Amino acid sequence: MEVDLVIIGAGSGGYEAGIYAYRRGMRTVLVELSPESVGGNCLNRGCIPSKYMRHGAYLIDKFEKMPEWGILPKGFDIDYKKLKEGRDNVVITIRENFKKFAQQINLPIIYGRGVVKDPNTVFVEGAEETIKTKFILVATGSRPVAVGNLVPDGKSVVDTDQIWDIDFVPKKVLIVGGGAVGVEFAYIFRKYGSKVVLVELQRRILPVDDIPEDSGRYLGRKLKQLGVDIRTKTTVESWEKTPDGVKAKLSDGTEVEADFILLAVGRKPTTQGFGLEEVGVEMDQKGFIKVNEFSQTTVPNIYACGDVTSPLMLAHKAMYEGKIAVNHMLGGTDWKRDDRVIPKIIYSAFEVASVGLTEDQAEDEDYEVLVGVTSFVTNPKAMDDGENEGFVRIVADEETGEILGCHIVGPHAGELIHQVVHMIRDRKNVEFASKTMYSHPSLSEAIGQSASEIHYGPITWVKR
Amino acid sequence: MEVDLVIIGAGSGGYEAGIYAYRRGMRTVLVELSPESVGGNCLNRGCIPSKYMRHGAYLIDKFEKMPEWGILPKGFDIDYKKLKEGRDNVVITIRENFKKFAQQINLPIIYGRGVVKDPNTVFVEGAEETIKTKFILVATGSRPVAVGNLVPDGKSVVDTDQIWDIDFVPKKVLIVGGGAVGVEFAYIFRKYGSKVVLVELQRRILPVDDIPEDSGRYLGRKLKQLGVDIRTKTTVESWEKTPDGVKAKLSDGTEVEADFILLAVGRKPTTQGFGLEEVGVEMDQKGFIKVNEFSQTTVPNIYACGDVTSPLMLAHKAMYEGKIAVNHMLGGTDWKRDDRVIPKIIYSAFEVASVGLTEDQAEDEDYEVLVGVTSFVTNPKAMDDGENEGFVRIVADEETGEILGCHIVGPHAGELIHQVVHMIRDRKNVEFASKTMYSHPSLSEAIGQSASEIHYGPITWVKR
Repeated sequence: MEVDLVIIGAGSGGYEAGIYAYRRGMRTVLVELSPESVGGNCLNRGCIPSKYMRHGAYLIDKFEKMPEWGILPKGFDIDYKKLKEGRDNVVITIRENFKKFAQQINLPIIYGRGVVKDPNTVFVEGAEETIKTKFILVATGSRPVAVGNLVPDGKSVVDTDQIWDIDFVPKKVLIVGGGAVGVEFAYIFRKYGSKVVLVELQRRILPVDDIPEDSGRYLGRKLKQLGVDIRTKTTVESWEKTPDGVKAKLSDGTEVEADFILLAVGRKPTTQGFGLEEVGVEMDQKGFIKVNEFSQTTVPNIYACGDVTSPLMLAHKAMYEGKIAVNHMLGGTDWKRDDRVIPKIIYSAFEVASVGLTEDQAEDEDYEVLVGVTSFVTNPKAMDDGENEGFVRIVADEETGEILGCHIVGPHAGELIHQVVHMIRDRKNVEFASKTMYSHPSLSEAIGQSASEIHYGPITWVKR
Repeated sequence: MEVDLVIIGAGSGGYEAGIYAYRRGMRTVLVELSPESVGGNCLNRGCIPSKYMRHGAYLIDKFEKMPEWGILPKGFDIDYKKLKEGRDNVVITIRENFKKFAQQINLPIIYGRGVVKDPNTVFVEGAEETIKTKFILVATGSRPVAVGNLVPDGKSVVDTDQIWDIDFVPKKVLIVGGGAVGVEFAYIFRKYGSKVVLVELQRRILPVDDIPEDSGRYLGRKLKQLGVDIRTKTTVESWEKTPDGVKAKLSDGTEVEADFILLAVGRKPTTQGFGLEEVGVEMDQKGFIKVNEFSQTTVPNIYACGDVTSPLMLAHKAMYEGKIAVNHMLGGTDWKRDDRVIPKIIYSAFEVASVGLTEDQAEDEDYEVLVGVTSFVTNPKAMDDGENEGFVRIVADEETGEILGCHIVGPHAGELIHQVVHMIRDRKNVEFASKTMYSHPSLSEAIGQSASEIHYGPITWVKR
């Protein structure tokens, strides 16, 4: 078989790159371990099933507010198996759609392990097929890490690959890690009735540089309000099995009993066993594949996208890098990786969305920064929807008004942020954002108002 | 009293213009009939209370879907008075916030009827105050119209000013008019348990040029599925009171009994009694105030905004025109009225959003048109949320790829559309829209996909 492009890994990045390569006229082949793993982590063990479960938690929130809309419900029972079933149906439907579509456009998926033999040859173990190719895209993804004595066994210690098999609502769960996955499951399990203890090593939840402290703290307060027991600057010192589950000793001196421990402490790139180093693809010290702004590795015709390239493991970053790689294979040098335009969204008790720089980051880059904040508390549409919590925060360059970053907490933040993604990509300033006609009432108005706060000077009557 | 600007009417347009004028340093006074009417129709008898009720209907939709998320509810009762109470609380809170905020920034509101005595003098009847001013902005809004023998009495025939006083769920309601208000209340009453008959004179619901036929039809099908009895090309020929309500004879030969008739056939501008014509402000044949692209009337220092200027009666159009007027008073000629950038959003069984041109309109303007459509049926986020119905439709110029219009039906269409409002305003093309990094999974991805359908050529696997 001879093609233009072999993509190793049909997860979000590989799949999207495959479709894009097809659109651009490249003869392309996808190589994926098995028919069950098409769609990768995001689809099968990540964003898609977790968003489904998160929507269930959101529905319970809605349920509790219904009386204000004259709807007086008579209580509800929880059937976790039905939740799981609904969730798995969505995952399977999307996966089968993927495969059907690939077939329709004659984008072959070969099942097996793709191993690079030389820069122009991929051998698929399992299918026992040798493919000659002009280009290779490595999109092999990542897998959960364990820490110390917390070794996942799927029962007492459950990692983010294993959580999907749990088929009951735990009475009590101990979540280790206050990042995106940790706060998401804290919200899900809490709303479905669990007692939740969330421990985080660092001093706040969502402890990453590109999410401002305010966003993390605002979410943290809400989770606490909902009854999540958040312990920051805390670790699990030891744990043991008990007849009912586990007992853990925390670094704050307390003991926590739980049905199981959910380990959500991060992921590492999957880069071994694909023959990459053997042909000269270099890794950095942390095991990520070194890529340039076009997602090109140290071997010029081999590219990489997604979780293998950096710790910011987001499906859409993978999809984007995959397309940039394809564009570059075809000679395009106009489209480059650009960290400023990556939306980062967390779905927990609120949606927490960020794009571009935080104030701290902007100051580190020597900007004089202006910030405009608008609360959803008084936003009419948010009030109509009973979701008037959170805020829109815009960070701009004082000199030019250029929008450097935007950080939204609250209703539909994950969709709203895209307005600013477009603007940051296009280097728009706050005057532009303030002069758009926003529908009234809408949540989007808060974006215009935050921009106006900067452009015209602050007058806001924010209740924070 | 001597000021720079008197604004007659503190509805959406007047209020927003007042804040903007304050931001721009003008000494400004708002004149409004009474403390109870601050906020105008939108706040008191329009978009705000109706969006609240619409959210209740949406909650009932959500309630019914909960079992798929493992939430098994035990039924509910309806308490319409609580709905009304919650709704009125939101309206009053926003109104009081408005007033408090105006006070905080020293933007006076004088209560009474503002009458223009000469282009530089407004006399406020009631307050008996004469104000000398450089500029006047007329923002007096609109009121419902009646048709033929359907004369609103608040009981048998209820107009859109009176519907807010109804304090029970009608067993059966006859809605006259299939425009924005008609389809909104059809959905609300249907979900709260009413039988609903919706009659529309024209051949489809949402019968306006700037909403494409596909959007109206898609919504119509959904309403019918929910049990709304839609009768297009139909009118009420006669009606009479009965012991239980009303009985109406329709032009299709049938008779409909109902608790009351909701009349939602449109609004007319409120332009009489303000001394406008006396000082030379000209009206068009339909009674709208003639304005130029800067919202300036035929008297150079008198401007008008909102419902008095055109039949497209949208709060945000009023707000926008008000700001353009203020900008022009201060010498700005860069900011003009532009119909292409007005988002139009209807909240019914779906959100139906439009901006810019439909295909028909684009063809009328001699564009060669390309259209990209992406269904929400297979959108992963929409599937996770159980709202995978509807579509994103982008209309572009074949020659340049410029985005001419966008029409979204489905989840959060009313927020999503703003991404394209920004783009259309900035004359962006489909290449721009297709190269943004959209979060995965998100509804917003459907915008990028529709743009890609045009830019790269169609490959979509849309289930329509």
